[in-house]
Amino acid sequence: MKKLKIGIIGLGGRGRGLSINIVDMDDVEVVAVCDEYEDRVEHMQNYVKEHMGNTPIGTKDYKEVLAIDEIEAVIISTSWEAHVEIAVAAMRAGKYVGMEVGGAYAIEDCWKLVRTSEETGVPCMLLENCCYGQMEMMCLNLLDQGLLGEIVHCEGGYHHDLREEIINGNEKRHYRLRNYIMRCCENYPTHQLGPICKLLNINNGNRMVSLISVASKSASLREYAAKKRGADDPLANIQYAQGDVVTTIIRCAGGETITLTLDTTLPRVYSRGLIVSGTQGCYHEDNHSLYLDINEGKYTGDEFNGKAPGNAYECAELYNHPLWKQYLKDGVKYGHDGMDYLMLRAFFESVAAKVDPPIDVYDAAAWMSISSLSEDSIAMGGLPVPVPDFTSGKWIKPKAKKYVEKYRLDIIPEEID
Amino acid sequence: MKKLKIGIIGLGGRGRGLSINIVDMDDVEVVAVCDEYEDRVEHMQNYVKEHMGNTPIGTKDYKEVLAIDEIEAVIISTSWEAHVEIAVAAMRAGKYVGMEVGGAYAIEDCWKLVRTSEETGVPCMLLENCCYGQMEMMCLNLLDQGLLGEIVHCEGGYHHDLREEIINGNEKRHYRLRNYIMRCCENYPTHQLGPICKLLNINNGNRMVSLISVASKSASLREYAAKKRGADDPLANIQYAQGDVVTTIIRCAGGETITLTLDTTLPRVYSRGLIVSGTQGCYHEDNHSLYLDINEGKYTGDEFNGKAPGNAYECAELYNHPLWKQYLKDGVKYGHDGMDYLMLRAFFESVAAKVDPPIDVYDAAAWMSISSLSEDSIAMGGLPVPVPDFTSGKWIKPKAKKYVEKYRLDIIPEEID
Repeated sequence: MKKLKIGIIGLGGRGRGLSINIVDMDDVEVVAVCDEYEDRVEHMQNYVKEHMGNTPIGTKDYKEVLAIDEIEAVIISTSWEAHVEIAVAAMRAGKYVGMEVGGAYAIEDCWKLVRTSEETGVPCMLLENCCYGQMEMMCLNLLDQGLLGEIVHCEGGYHHDLREEIINGNEKRHYRLRNYIMRCCENYPTHQLGPICKLLNINNGNRMVSLISVASKSASLREYAAKKRGADDPLANIQYAQGDVVTTIIRCAGGETITLTLDTTLPRVYSRGLIVSGTQGCYHEDNHSLYLDINEGKYTGDEFNGKAPGNAYECAELYNHPLWKQYLKDGVKYGHDGMDYLMLRAFFESVAAKVDPPIDVYDAAAWMSISSLSEDSIAMGGLPVPVPDFTSGKWIKPKAKKYVEKYRLDIIPEEID
Repeated sequence: MKKLKIGIIGLGGRGRGLSINIVDMDDVEVVAVCDEYEDRVEHMQNYVKEHMGNTPIGTKDYKEVLAIDEIEAVIISTSWEAHVEIAVAAMRAGKYVGMEVGGAYAIEDCWKLVRTSEETGVPCMLLENCCYGQMEMMCLNLLDQGLLGEIVHCEGGYHHDLREEIINGNEKRHYRLRNYIMRCCENYPTHQLGPICKLLNINNGNRMVSLISVASKSASLREYAAKKRGADDPLANIQYAQGDVVTTIIRCAGGETITLTLDTTLPRVYSRGLIVSGTQGCYHEDNHSLYLDINEGKYTGDEFNGKAPGNAYECAELYNHPLWKQYLKDGVKYGHDGMDYLMLRAFFESVAAKVDPPIDVYDAAAWMSISSLSEDSIAMGGLPVPVPDFTSGKWIKPKAKKYVEKYRLDIIPEEID
């Protein structure tokens, strides 16, 4: 069997998390690993050696990875602000790119991704694992079957108490803190926006047209720093730019609205708060309900509304996406409820088959742009700002794409003319 | 015992719903009832006679009610658009007003309420029952005890599938349909905004400063009308102005944000979607969780997160507001999970004691204004619009008020100077 030869650039928490899945894959060979910290490089070299047999090349310079001829694809899991530079260089070096998620710092960065992919012909896939979440894919399946009717509104968020990681993350050399000090925006939009965009056919017969974004005050990080590091600690005495909760409303060409919430510095239960509201049905993550007109709301009773433990998922089986039906039979792999594995398989199998990635460079640009646009809107007191059309009009009558069919996330849009 | 003599103006579904509670009260006498439909008047006269012994005066003209000397207070439960005119006339006639909820059609209507109450010295209470909801009051109690820390963000909504009532409500002479045809706004803001404003000390050391509002397309009502009344029915062939989901973000002087969602024409489970997010705790209605730092999230486990049936409420008992603790002992009365009774008692006992109502005319004006302001913002493509200060500056150092203490909803604000 021919193995797909890859490099992994960025070996912090996320790079290590992905590698847990990768070392189990027989059809992938990790040829090189890269990080700016030597200890991380050594650790990963040993980890790969132990599980896969070979010792990958280790380097602090990503350009050395890109210079290795036999490498066909790279995974970029560095800090947010390094993603685009490395992705652009990788495409220029002819390496199929799998880029971890994050938000854009500038709209120009989104254009750089698009421009480079168009000029080089090299695909760039955004590694948005939540697109392969069980419930997200169930919604895709429900929509495909017509059970939700016409979708008019979606909500999602990143509700994740990251106070400890932000305030004490420097010991882990984490990159969040500086973002929370200097920026105020929807800094992590794609986890729920990605699946929602797929449901709404964004870049595939629909597009995001404009957004408004509003931030609450920043009150939590200083209080938390004082509690954990003492009242005299510098982190308890600076002004954090980032508001504790950022709410963004996006409007789409098709008339749909999307509400996105970033909520990462307050105590609470983890949730991505997915809501998919159609004219014939509604999926609601937080109250574990799937309300379908066709069932007269049947799965909102004890079977589905979270009152009976675990049954949300049991009932979901009725409507599971074919990919998840099979996955549940085969055994769900580790990493974020099994999403990481499916996402990585989608990436590697698309590279191997030399077909379109299920999340392409236009998706990456559009989804990531929300960070920069929300920063603008907040800075201007909540003024609406336009979302660029990164497809330059190709969204309105998209060409059919070649996918590894089972990983397809696009709904095939109705032909209008 | 001296009985409080009242009139009830507006005897549709809501007026009847309130009367179920009122006829059980020994200290209240219904002296007059009024509605534009004679059959409703007769029905209510008979209903009061049956349960209270006396036959109230019946009339189609609210002015006749206001002309009755012995009446001390009126309840106004007419269609939304008649509330303000009647409330103003009632205050001018010296009758203490209990006005049912709804949104404003014009900012001037909000000023009329304020101006009239200030000029006449007659109080006007907005009958927002959700302020007396068990969970809403638990949040008030948690905040009072300092267990939520500093509140930075709240969310709430009116998620209620009203398709049947809107499309087939004309047979019940309902007033919603004409609003959904002609207006696009947050048309029913107060159910969740009311309790949130009390938690945020709005008009009591804080105020709402501005809002933005965005509407989704309107897709559901036509589809529903076609299904229920046939594709040729006029209601299946008109353009509804009201978008299916309207999302509003409000900013407060204290830096807090409030996200309000109106969601009344799509299939889904009923919810008011309350979220109260503070620096030390979060209450989340939809996932039945109360996450407090002090408990290290204890009540987000099986005890509180909805996985174990009923336990959300059981655990809530730990933190129940004193009013609800007593209410649960005495037995919860009918009507909207017991809220209606508490709200009516708060109204009647405030009138009898001649003290301030717990929800006053400034609250009414500010909360109702959101409808009209959201209509403006939506019409202008989501531009931010200012929220008037109906207290004319009195919010910034509010005078102490006299309340019937147990029905108090205001947090006593910290003295700054």
